[in-house]
Amino acid sequence: MAPPERPAAVPRDPTRVVIEGVAPEIDAGRFPAKRVVGESLEVEADVFTDGHDLVAAALWVRPPGDEPTVEHAMVPLGNDRWSSTVVPDRLGRWAFTVVGWVDRFGTWRHGTLRKVEAGQDVDVELQIGAELVRAAAGRAKGPDATLLADVASVLEEGDADGITADGLEAAMRRWASREPLVRYGRTLEVVVERERAGHGAWYEFFPRSASPDPDRHGTLADAADRLPYVASMGFDVVYLPPIHPIGREFRKGPNNSVTSAPGDLGSPWGIGAEEGGHTAVHPELGTLDDLDAFVARASSLGMEVALDIAFQCAPDHPWVTEHPEWFRHRPDGTIQYAENPPKKYQDIYPIDFESEDWEALWDALADVVRFWIGHGVTIFRVDNPHTKPFRFWEWLIASIQADHPEAIFLSEAFTRPKVMHQLAKAGFSQSYTYFAWRQSAWELREYFTELTTPPLVDAFRPNAWPNTPDILTEQLQHGGRPVFVQRLVLAATLSANYGIYGPAFELVAHRAVAPGSEEYLDSEKYQRRVWDLDAPHSLRHLIARVNDIRRSHPALLQNRTLRFHPTDNEQLLCYSKTDPAGGVPVLVVVNVDPHHRQSGFVHLDLETLGVDPHHRYEVHDLLGAARYSWEGSANYVELDPEVLPAHIFAIGRPSRSESDFEHFA
Amino acid sequence: MAPPERPAAVPRDPTRVVIEGVAPEIDAGRFPAKRVVGESLEVEADVFTDGHDLVAAALWVRPPGDEPTVEHAMVPLGNDRWSSTVVPDRLGRWAFTVVGWVDRFGTWRHGTLRKVEAGQDVDVELQIGAELVRAAAGRAKGPDATLLADVASVLEEGDADGITADGLEAAMRRWASREPLVRYGRTLEVVVERERAGHGAWYEFFPRSASPDPDRHGTLADAADRLPYVASMGFDVVYLPPIHPIGREFRKGPNNSVTSAPGDLGSPWGIGAEEGGHTAVHPELGTLDDLDAFVARASSLGMEVALDIAFQCAPDHPWVTEHPEWFRHRPDGTIQYAENPPKKYQDIYPIDFESEDWEALWDALADVVRFWIGHGVTIFRVDNPHTKPFRFWEWLIASIQADHPEAIFLSEAFTRPKVMHQLAKAGFSQSYTYFAWRQSAWELREYFTELTTPPLVDAFRPNAWPNTPDILTEQLQHGGRPVFVQRLVLAATLSANYGIYGPAFELVAHRAVAPGSEEYLDSEKYQRRVWDLDAPHSLRHLIARVNDIRRSHPALLQNRTLRFHPTDNEQLLCYSKTDPAGGVPVLVVVNVDPHHRQSGFVHLDLETLGVDPHHRYEVHDLLGAARYSWEGSANYVELDPEVLPAHIFAIGRPSRSESDFEHFA
Repeated sequence: MAPPERPAAVPRDPTRVVIEGVAPEIDAGRFPAKRVVGESLEVEADVFTDGHDLVAAALWVRPPGDEPTVEHAMVPLGNDRWSSTVVPDRLGRWAFTVVGWVDRFGTWRHGTLRKVEAGQDVDVELQIGAELVRAAAGRAKGPDATLLADVASVLEEGDADGITADGLEAAMRRWASREPLVRYGRTLEVVVERERAGHGAWYEFFPRSASPDPDRHGTLADAADRLPYVASMGFDVVYLPPIHPIGREFRKGPNNSVTSAPGDLGSPWGIGAEEGGHTAVHPELGTLDDLDAFVARASSLGMEVALDIAFQCAPDHPWVTEHPEWFRHRPDGTIQYAENPPKKYQDIYPIDFESEDWEALWDALADVVRFWIGHGVTIFRVDNPHTKPFRFWEWLIASIQADHPEAIFLSEAFTRPKVMHQLAKAGFSQSYTYFAWRQSAWELREYFTELTTPPLVDAFRPNAWPNTPDILTEQLQHGGRPVFVQRLVLAATLSANYGIYGPAFELVAHRAVAPGSEEYLDSEKYQRRVWDLDAPHSLRHLIARVNDIRRSHPALLQNRTLRFHPTDNEQLLCYSKTDPAGGVPVLVVVNVDPHHRQSGFVHLDLETLGVDPHHRYEVHDLLGAARYSWEGSANYVELDPEVLPAHIFAIGRPSRSESDFEHFA
Repeated sequence: MAPPERPAAVPRDPTRVVIEGVAPEIDAGRFPAKRVVGESLEVEADVFTDGHDLVAAALWVRPPGDEPTVEHAMVPLGNDRWSSTVVPDRLGRWAFTVVGWVDRFGTWRHGTLRKVEAGQDVDVELQIGAELVRAAAGRAKGPDATLLADVASVLEEGDADGITADGLEAAMRRWASREPLVRYGRTLEVVVERERAGHGAWYEFFPRSASPDPDRHGTLADAADRLPYVASMGFDVVYLPPIHPIGREFRKGPNNSVTSAPGDLGSPWGIGAEEGGHTAVHPELGTLDDLDAFVARASSLGMEVALDIAFQCAPDHPWVTEHPEWFRHRPDGTIQYAENPPKKYQDIYPIDFESEDWEALWDALADVVRFWIGHGVTIFRVDNPHTKPFRFWEWLIASIQADHPEAIFLSEAFTRPKVMHQLAKAGFSQSYTYFAWRQSAWELREYFTELTTPPLVDAFRPNAWPNTPDILTEQLQHGGRPVFVQRLVLAATLSANYGIYGPAFELVAHRAVAPGSEEYLDSEKYQRRVWDLDAPHSLRHLIARVNDIRRSHPALLQNRTLRFHPTDNEQLLCYSKTDPAGGVPVLVVVNVDPHHRQSGFVHLDLETLGVDPHHRYEVHDLLGAARYSWEGSANYVELDPEVLPAHIFAIGRPSRSESDFEHFA
């Protein structure tokens, strides 16, 4: 590889406008930023020149496809910062850049008006202005051409009224010379995805446990019958673990034992057997038709289905014999199984992305995704993406979205921060997070501040899960029902995307396989479970309430406006989200101590909440239904975890009567 | 200009290593970072890959000229961050980039050792390792080739001792395959300037006032006789305002009056008259020979001369007739004078950088700089650079430094922050600052924290001036001698480069031309002044002491280690600088209230100071000469502005006796 280039001589360039500090820009434009349809894209840039001349700037936006580039004027924010906001209205990769120029007309107008005010002779200035306007008239079309020619004549006659002629500024904005126009050095991109990429409530469950008959393996048909229950809790996305044939060689037994008995079901992530691989349905679950019916049933209930993409193979996966070159062979001729020395995972063969045949391999993997898209599934939860090359995901997601911009990919990576961020930058629509292990108020404040501010907010969309089949935190094991409620509220209100693994979650399942382990006892990863969905301790109605609050409060369905407010009790976490479209602000107070009643004052940033500090305002607890009349920044809160560990307040505008308040509650 | 490019399809790239977040990197490599010879350049980068494989990284550095690229190993800092430090040893533009690769041997060694520890069979692993080592042996030269071939044989024989064979790791670091090597996407640059760019104490004075005879105009010869006085105060750089012929048309009178009487001297910045322009010496000051003698005299006293570069012309500058195309003509045929409507500066014609003849103009301006370099001057204080195009300066400075890397340029811009920063990024070695107007403790903390941390610290070298001929702050007008002492100590210890305009400063000149004005009464910009250098109230001996402290404490001669320490009295500003080379740390405490004695505790970050928190340590006031024995973080300080408003402490290592302390004091 060549050594660093020798520094080139600095070229002569007579242009004067500087454009820099453009945002959003991720790693100097190496990766696109993310938005969803209808979400604002505010582009900012530093634009300035030397001396006293005024500048002007514009945002150039190229929509996907063959649509022409559109120019949007930028407005100054002060301190040489300029801004323009567009709202992307279609899916795909948008391109944008910023242009700037010396505003010669504006500079002339400003200076000449100052001279007129000071009573100075402006005869020569009027001639200078006339030249500018006359030149623009020559370029102008339609009524502008006439107007500009007329004003030029007025100025040529020495009449200072021409400076402030009606319509002159607007016409000059359209037709004045911008030479030499300066363009920002890079074209930046934004991937615009559909609304569901931006927000959603997810519910994961194992079809194998969906049978109404405790003695029978659940099927996709049983799972379809479970969907009304899931819909009743208000979820948007139903996510199924892998539905493919499960390998028999080295199959794991219950509780992850390394040997299995006949009849043991194995892990759905041990993908592939003689019945087929990544595009087949496990015979015990049913057929492709059953899957189609499941997808249709979910759709009829207003939900979407997410499938699991786990690019790894059981030893008896058909690819192992059909494409041995896609696996790493050891000097003794055996295929390298997964390992993290000294741990061995002999039931899993990793795919060898350094295979000589990598291009065909990549195509085959992309075809798996396309296959399921062909069956109406466009949301994919990707298992362990951090063990495959980042550039593979970047290519895969871009390739799929080029044809199917509606496809959504969730990264299931729980690893080092830079690796997780890289996967998000490489294109994953959403990402699992450290949420499960961020439990104190300061940890949650720090982490969600990082997630909801640049640079992360433009690339990384958190999907917060209190539990998963792999994660039963020590807090959930020992905190009882209050901690399940607390964690549900936190996930659902801190993050526009969140999910639970059920029915374990709503049934408060909390027994681990061993002390110090985060694995569930009798985990569904390795066996069927029978769940009593009607158990009286179920959180299903509370979950339904929380999801209903989310749906009726757009403030909760995005992350960018999340703000934390100080409290004088560190066990009380207080935060708000405001709706960029002007809907009701939501204020959440959570007692993060599951064991004791906690009380104290919250100190609200009223400006953020849009509350007039000089008037009383109403807060309505959407969870507990109480209403309070508050005043000023400091307000008292008391939360008993045994009753409800959280308030989710709708914040009222200053109001005089209950009825004024009703309209937005 | 073309619209934004349509997003390209994401290419297929099978490489797995990510390199990003490289520092120092200014605006994605658009501008070089800055260092001086002998100053450390620590390059950091995020380097990682997918999965569990280890990676390795190296820094490639290309020195200026034809020297070959040198590789430096990078070491992991944790959290996927890697670092390598080089110390540039010559002037010029250096290039560097970062490379990374999957460390297959390291990954194999780590995993195999874990398996051996766990008592697992590693027969196949030894064969895998043997292949890696055998391949490296084929590439190796010298003793490494033998060693690697021998170890490969040991491994092939199934002997696990081969894994830990002496010298194997080091030899594999040299010869193991790096394929596929990944290189960071950009080559970055560092401009390495000479030591004087990094630190210096500047003294500005007007030769016109240097005459020993109060009735006679001062000359360069008089100014040369003033040099021993300047040297006695310990300054490094003597800066003279423009020494060129002064225009006669529209010449300003004393105190900036718009009319001048015969015999009025005019402003040195009104450059050019029939006697010549930017390469001529004002006849009243003397000749080019006198300038040469002045430069030689300064050099013999250990000082350098800085000249003023003010690219503007008086109406009678020779260029106005020789090159009328370099000035802007108005429709009435007159030349556009400088203005900021409604203010007019009819004594100054700005140069028109948008001239059709701009290339010849740029060459002529560069020739001015080369002319004075030819007379032994390599430091230039550039007047109002922000009214000329940034790209002009970028070209000019790079062009001059290509032939004369010893040339140093100080930007005299007091304008909006982004404009000042852009000039620094464009190449100015040093920059004037807002220091004069940052007077409270919190303002100084905030401003100097910004200046001494990335991104600014890599581009912008502050040169802090308490006063200039244009700036007599209200604080200096009314604060008396205590404020002069305070501001001197702040400038000299907060900033590695600082300067004063004398003799006005050391003689505590504080009368403004009018209430609310920052202009000096009877400013030397428009007339001669007579100064009594031996006045008993002169600060010359205190200044000499401060400059002596600087010279003997390298910690003060750089900015990067500046750290502020909390105090419990907001009138006490406390900060330290540590010497990267391990010299004595310096701790400064300043009472920023010039009117009252202030006392309180400072709370030191002892780790930053390298002080053992469990032992007493000595602090020696280099300014007041007192010594104190301190312990722990919190220590009491009391400062009376009428005595001395500041401590400049040398911090002792834990010591048992006075003599231990002496060696570094």
